[in-house]
Amino acid sequence: MSTPMFQRVALIGLGLIASSISHVMRREGLAGHIAGHARSSETRKTAADIGLVDSIHETPEEAVRGADLVILCVPVGAFGPLAAQISAHLAEGAILTDVGSVKGHIIEQVTPHVPDGVHFIPGHPVAGTEQSGPESGFAELFDGRWCILTPLKGADQAAVAKLEAFWKACGSSVDIMTAEHHDLVLAVVSHLPHLIAYNIVGTAADLEEVTKSEVIKYSAAGFRDFTRIAASDPVMWRDVFLTNKEAVLEMLGRFNEDLTALQRAIRRGEGDALFDWFTRTREIRRSIIDAGQDEAVPDFGRRGDPTGSS
Amino acid sequence: MSTPMFQRVALIGLGLIASSISHVMRREGLAGHIAGHARSSETRKTAADIGLVDSIHETPEEAVRGADLVILCVPVGAFGPLAAQISAHLAEGAILTDVGSVKGHIIEQVTPHVPDGVHFIPGHPVAGTEQSGPESGFAELFDGRWCILTPLKGADQAAVAKLEAFWKACGSSVDIMTAEHHDLVLAVVSHLPHLIAYNIVGTAADLEEVTKSEVIKYSAAGFRDFTRIAASDPVMWRDVFLTNKEAVLEMLGRFNEDLTALQRAIRRGEGDALFDWFTRTREIRRSIIDAGQDEAVPDFGRRGDPTGSS
Repeated sequence: MSTPMFQRVALIGLGLIASSISHVMRREGLAGHIAGHARSSETRKTAADIGLVDSIHETPEEAVRGADLVILCVPVGAFGPLAAQISAHLAEGAILTDVGSVKGHIIEQVTPHVPDGVHFIPGHPVAGTEQSGPESGFAELFDGRWCILTPLKGADQAAVAKLEAFWKACGSSVDIMTAEHHDLVLAVVSHLPHLIAYNIVGTAADLEEVTKSEVIKYSAAGFRDFTRIAASDPVMWRDVFLTNKEAVLEMLGRFNEDLTALQRAIRRGEGDALFDWFTRTREIRRSIIDAGQDEAVPDFGRRGDPTGSS
Repeated sequence: MSTPMFQRVALIGLGLIASSISHVMRREGLAGHIAGHARSSETRKTAADIGLVDSIHETPEEAVRGADLVILCVPVGAFGPLAAQISAHLAEGAILTDVGSVKGHIIEQVTPHVPDGVHFIPGHPVAGTEQSGPESGFAELFDGRWCILTPLKGADQAAVAKLEAFWKACGSSVDIMTAEHHDLVLAVVSHLPHLIAYNIVGTAADLEEVTKSEVIKYSAAGFRDFTRIAASDPVMWRDVFLTNKEAVLEMLGRFNEDLTALQRAIRRGEGDALFDWFTRTREIRRSIIDAGQDEAVPDFGRRGDPTGSS
């Protein structure tokens, strides 16, 4: 057997992303040993029961001890206390990274606690499903997706290259950008869409004139598409909106301007303006399919058969 | 062979819904003969090439002649002129129905042209994909979905029962309600979601700070879910918004109120309010899956493999 890329990898937090990383590391033989920690004893027990990692630790300090790669996979709001807790236990020369959806806030929270000789390289695999927890991961999650790294000024280039190689071995392509740009891009492609989805699903559930049962029965008319991402982990998303506030509010402002323009076109009966807008958006769908970032099959490949069997 | 439910069915318009109806009618043996018409000669040619229907007609008048079931499957904005055109050619005793997404407007447009002895029963199969055209149909489209009928006051009950039996034979469940309530319900479950999706996809494509290429590359972070319904037929959707204006603007008003509240919660850092909202929306997803209106598989069953092969 060839030498694994890392001798010991510590996964702190054992949700969808961490469990997927564990599966892909095993498939690719990237880690000599995988140590894991989750704050909740229930999560630790589930992870142990399914053999998700090689060793499970009650504290993050124990889990990171001796690890040459530490990946923080907790909600964005939990980084400050966690970094303080593990700081003194990180091994000399280790790479410390994360998978959080907001980079600026995490950098602010973690940087003060990074000891000399530890390479902190923030990261974000742009991949996921609406599921959460240690049983939701799968090795293919990162295949064909992008992982964004946002190294700090003066970051060790060899460490960055090694982390880049790691993500490529996990199936991803890798992009490098500033944390500030990352947070703006993700506000557009992820945070705003989630906010809008959460909003419309809540709106529909609250109407007096249309019952919740009607909303559910006829959801195949479009509504159900929004319910998928509106079913994402509430803690994770609360933290994203609280910590990427400025970029989200900025993008929401743009969204609202455009929505007001569409509303005006409807009120005035401006059919040509609507037609042009809807034609342009159709082209963007095609570009996404051409770029391999979604499948061309109609209706996301759902079957007519609602049981999903076929 | 048993006698088909209808001797001759005329499909006017040969897009996604009409072609799916043709496929399911053939599978279930519901029609002795299927006559079709589409306004565009290109569509007629494609339909003929794939043998979509039994006879193709250059005019709707010819197609409806002698039919005991006529199904109008054209964009909502095209009903008035079409009804005037076929009026004198409808057979005594025929059922005239449609599949349009807005019922009030269609009733206004069609009713004046319905001859005595013809049973006009408006209908709407709540099913679809983002695809369009005669090649996009498939027999399973209506399986497990709902078809809504909105019969007028004094409608012939035997004719309503026969159309209900037809849609059940196509795989759907059937609900009956007023046109007004239909248009309100659909504004929530379909028209507003499409408007929001069209809007966010357009917004993201127009930013200066984030390139279109970035939006496409990282679309798996959530954005791509919206691009599916924002790829729906622009003519059909222009007409929906122009003809269900009041209900759409009313629902958009509710959406905007809620969005302002969420925006305020983000600006003020009200984490508990966000958490509660996001927890509630997660439950609605579960209800939709429990009702058989979407599949439980994560990420709509997309594969990690972006080629979709597996």
